[in-house]
Parts: sequence; structure tokens; C-alpha cells
Amino acid sequence: MNNIDPYKIYSKQKSIIEKRLFGLLKGSKPDSLYEPCRYILHSGGKRVRALLILLSVKAAGAQYSKGYNAAVAVEILHNFTLVHDDIMDNADKRRGMPTLHKKYDISTAILAGDNLIAVAYMNLLKDAGPYAGNIVKSFTKGIIEVCEGQSLDKEFELRNNVTLQEYLIMIKKKTAALAEMCCLIGGQIGGGTNKHLRMLKTFGRNLGIAFQLQDDLLDITGDETEFGKVVGGDLIEGKKTYLFLKALEIAAGNNKTMLLEVIKKNGIRKNQVGKYKELYNKLDIIKLTKQEVFRYTQKAVSAARKIEDDEARHMMIWLAESLVERSK
Amino acid sequence: MNNIDPYKIYSKQKSIIEKRLFGLLKGSKPDSLYEPCRYILHSGGKRVRALLILLSVKAAGAQYSKGYNAAVAVEILHNFTLVHDDIMDNADKRRGMPTLHKKYDISTAILAGDNLIAVAYMNLLKDAGPYAGNIVKSFTKGIIEVCEGQSLDKEFELRNNVTLQEYLIMIKKKTAALAEMCCLIGGQIGGGTNKHLRMLKTFGRNLGIAFQLQDDLLDITGDETEFGKVVGGDLIEGKKTYLFLKALEIAAGNNKTMLLEVIKKNGIRKNQVGKYKELYNKLDIIKLTKQEVFRYTQKAVSAARKIEDDEARHMMIWLAESLVERSK
Repeated sequence: MNNIDPYKIYSKQKSIIEKRLFGLLKGSKPDSLYEPCRYILHSGGKRVRALLILLSVKAAGAQYSKGYNAAVAVEILHNFTLVHDDIMDNADKRRGMPTLHKKYDISTAILAGDNLIAVAYMNLLKDAGPYAGNIVKSFTKGIIEVCEGQSLDKEFELRNNVTLQEYLIMIKKKTAALAEMCCLIGGQIGGGTNKHLRMLKTFGRNLGIAFQLQDDLLDITGDETEFGKVVGGDLIEGKKTYLFLKALEIAAGNNKTMLLEVIKKNGIRKNQVGKYKELYNKLDIIKLTKQEVFRYTQKAVSAARKIEDDEARHMMIWLAESLVERSK
Repeated sequence: MNNIDPYKIYSKQKSIIEKRLFGLLKGSKPDSLYEPCRYILHSGGKRVRALLILLSVKAAGAQYSKGYNAAVAVEILHNFTLVHDDIMDNADKRRGMPTLHKKYDISTAILAGDNLIAVAYMNLLKDAGPYAGNIVKSFTKGIIEVCEGQSLDKEFELRNNVTLQEYLIMIKKKTAALAEMCCLIGGQIGGGTNKHLRMLKTFGRNLGIAFQLQDDLLDITGDETEFGKVVGGDLIEGKKTYLFLKALEIAAGNNKTMLLEVIKKNGIRKNQVGKYKELYNKLDIIKLTKQEVFRYTQKAVSAARKIEDDEARHMMIWLAESLVERSK
């Protein structure tokens, strides 16, 4: 495996996908619809979901190129979710740039998002071939889960009694379902056996959960300049993250009171972040969360180890491990 | 054909579709997502798009029942467009009830609409069988055209130099494309030949245009209580309808100035409606529009006449003629 340079392969495939993504809607009219669509597709991102498709195609025994259109499709779909989520969250910035509804307006952002869903399907179909029925079904099931997850997420903002278990159900739907769907679809396009598809789904799902827990963790452990967000931003906004709900589950006495304050006041002040970070440390929350991230990553890696294709296996393990080690 | 009672057949099929539509999301969780979805699906409507699917299935030589899931799918899709359009138009009421974003909130309405798109695909797939690739493609192309049409519609609100030709392109995308898509998909599900599909598309497209022009006409000629909207509402809101743009094309001198006032002032007062109705009559706009509605209806009817299946042919001609004669 010495001749496999995962980062090089990732970079190469990423640039292939981005080239397609950038060329896709060039010249499409009307501009009032497509200029916003192009804006969001050009706004960057790690393109991890596209990579999941490609690696899964390869894991199932086919060439990356068989999944290029589907890879473009999941990136478009992911960007649709960002556009609509940003409206719902009233977010001003995304990847350092104005969100779509801030650059244009809410109507434009709603419509651009809607159109992106359909454009995603159109691209998916190009790679679906004889398996179109199954592949479109997997894709659609993924969208439904994402919507259900997003709805739970919004619901949790208003509820004061969210449990850790409920939180895990929510992120499984909101984040892990899409990663699982990418792997499943890649496997289906690659003509994988049921055994392939099972492994790939396990890999995607667990990777997705690990990714989200790591994201929650980075809010506290991340480096402000590198992470690109305010450290403790989730606490400031009163978000019920894995760390917060785990702490609430463990804490008692004054510690519990302190945590309940966050819920009661719908967040904390910036100068209180340090105090809460200390509390998390005292309750071993950082360590416990890291262990969970590790546990889900290992589940993903175990599934990936069963992949016969050397390059796909190597890449999937590398991807799982680097997502956990990421600092942004 | 004396034994065919079109209204009876329509009513029967409508009630079959509604029963399915109402049962579809019963018990789906979370309620925060599905309660709004159920609300809009229960809000009524003529279910014309579902009927177009069923009649086209029959026209292609199959039984209505082969298209029930697809018929449900297009109704769901249509309702998604209503939910998102109502946000964009800041509409308070729809079919006499609060719009979704007024009953809940904008975030809920965005998300419910997104979910409905996916639920629509899921239902479509149930009837797509071996033709899934083609059918999903037709469906997706329809959604893209609707988005493009809606974007043009929003764009026209802000532009002062919209031409009649541009308006026709817009309604072809926003309204006629979905009707055409229903007929095409019905034909595909029914296993129709290319000749069937061509006829059905021609029927759907022309019916859709006639329907929209009739809608524009009813704003002026409709009976307030029966039509359910304020007569002249489009003029009051300054909408650039077929009637308005046709008048603008024909008018000169003082008449033209009077019309340009509508654009300049972004609409007129309610007590000015009578004056503009008079102007429309003076310019023969009502008559000219009726002629256009008739012309497009005849194109639809001509296409329908070529359908071999007696019941489908009879129903399609009846549908085209009754949409034109409708008063609401």
C-alpha cells in the first residue's frame, strides 16, 4: 500500500468533482434563479460526500468515473440543505461568505434550494442506469431523513427536556443518514453485492455520527482562528449538543444548576465560556466525547477493513481517521 | 359514449386519490414535520394533476390503478409548490384557510415543502417500475421548469418592460410544464408508445396554458362570491397578467398612459377596478383573451381526439372544455 497517497487521491478526485460542479450550471437561464445556484456551488467545502460516493463505487468493484455525476448530485443536495438551513437558522455567514438569503433574499434562497434538489436528481440519474429505481429510492430516503432530522433539531431548540438518546436519533437522521446514503448509492452504482452494501452503509453511518460528535467537540476544543468559528459558540447560542446533554446527564447539585441556567437563559455570555469549559473538564465530558468519537470511528474502520479493493479500503480508513483528527 | 358520465368518473377517481393522500402520512413522526405536511395535503383542491396522470395512464392502454401512486405524487408536488410560493408571495390565505407559514412559521413551511418533494418522489417510484429512469427524469424536468417559471414570475414583478412573449414563456414553465409532465408520466407508466406520449404532452401543455389564461381572465370576469377572490385583484396588486400585457401591447395615447400608471404605482386602488375593466372592454381584451383560451383549448382537444381509448378520450375532452367553462 506504499504507493497509495490518500491525500493526493482525495485532492485529485475533489478537483474533478469541483470542475464538474462549477461547469454544470454555466449559462443556465434565468439568471435570477441560476446565479444564486452557482454562488452556493462555488462556495467551497470539503466535498466529503462526493468522496464517499466515489470510494464506495470503487469499493463495489467499479471505477471512480462511474460515480462522477452521482458525486456531483450529493454535493448539490448537501448545498441545498445548507441554503435552507441557513434561512431557518437566520445565519449571516457560511464559509466566510454571506449566506444565500443574505446576499439575495429569502424568496430567492428558497427557490434556489428547491431547484438544487431537482438538479441533484437530474445528475444522479445520469449514473443510475439500470439501477435507477433503487438508487433514486436510496437518495430520496436520505432526503426524507435529513428533513426529519432538521425538524427534530429545530424542535429541540424549543424543548427543555431533550435527552442524549433523542439527540443521537436526531444526528443519525440529520448528518449520518446522508453519509450512509452516499455510501449506499456509490455501492449500488458500482454494482456491489448485498454484502458490499451492508458494509458500506455501516461505514457511512458510523462515520457520519463520529463526524457530528467531533463537530460538537471542536466547538469547545477548537482553535478559534483555525476552526473559523467562535469557541464555545454552541454554549453562547444555548445549543443542546452532545457535550451539553452528556454533561446534563452526569451533573448533580451546583453543576447541574449551572447547566440548567444555559437552557433557562437560552445561552450564555461570551465571558462565561471559560467557566463552562472548566465544568466540562471537571465532568470529564471532553474525554467521554472523544471516546465516543473514537468508538464510532472504529466501527466505521472495522467495516472498511472488509473492503477487498486496496485503494478504496485504504482511502476509507484514511478518511475516517483524518475526520477524527481534524481541527476544523 | 352515452354510458360515460365524466363528472362521475372524475369524482370517483378524485375520492380514491384523496383517500390515499389523507392516509399517506398518518402517524409519520416527528409531528413537528408531518403535522404541517398533513395540513396542506388535507386542504383540498381540484386534484386536476392527479386526474391528468390517471387519464394518461388509461390513454396509453393501462388501468387507472396503475397510476394511483404517481397521481398522489403529483398532488404532493403541486402542494409543495403552493407552500413555498405562498411564502414568497407573503400570502395569508389559501383555499379559505391560513397558509402553512402563517399557521406555523416560515422555517416549518420551508422544511415541510422540502420534505413533500421527497415524499412525492417516494410515491412516484412505487408506480415507476421498469421505467423508473425515464419517469423520474420527466418528473425532475417538470420541477426544474416550475422553479424556472416561478423565478421568472418573481423577476417580472420587479421589471417594467415585460413582454407578452416573455409572459407566455413564464406560464409555459410555471403552469403548463407541470400539466405536460403529468400527461407524459401517465403515458410512460401506462407503457404508451412514442406516438401516445407526443399526443399526451401536446394535450397537457396546451391545457395548462389555457388554464392559466382562463385564470387571468377570471380575475376580471369572475363572480366575486363564486370565484373566491376579489375581482380585479391582479390589477390591484399590479400583476402583469396576460390581459394587462395584451392591453399594453395594443393601447396608445391616454389608454397607454393609464396602463403605465398601474406599473408605476405598483397596482391600483379597489375603486379604480371598474375604470380599468372598461378600458379592457374598449380594447377588446376580454374577447381577445377568450379567443386565446379557446385556441389553446382546441389544440388540447385536437390532441385528445387522437386517443383510441374511448373513456380516456371522452374524459380528456370533457376536462379541457370544463376547465375553460369554469367560473372559479
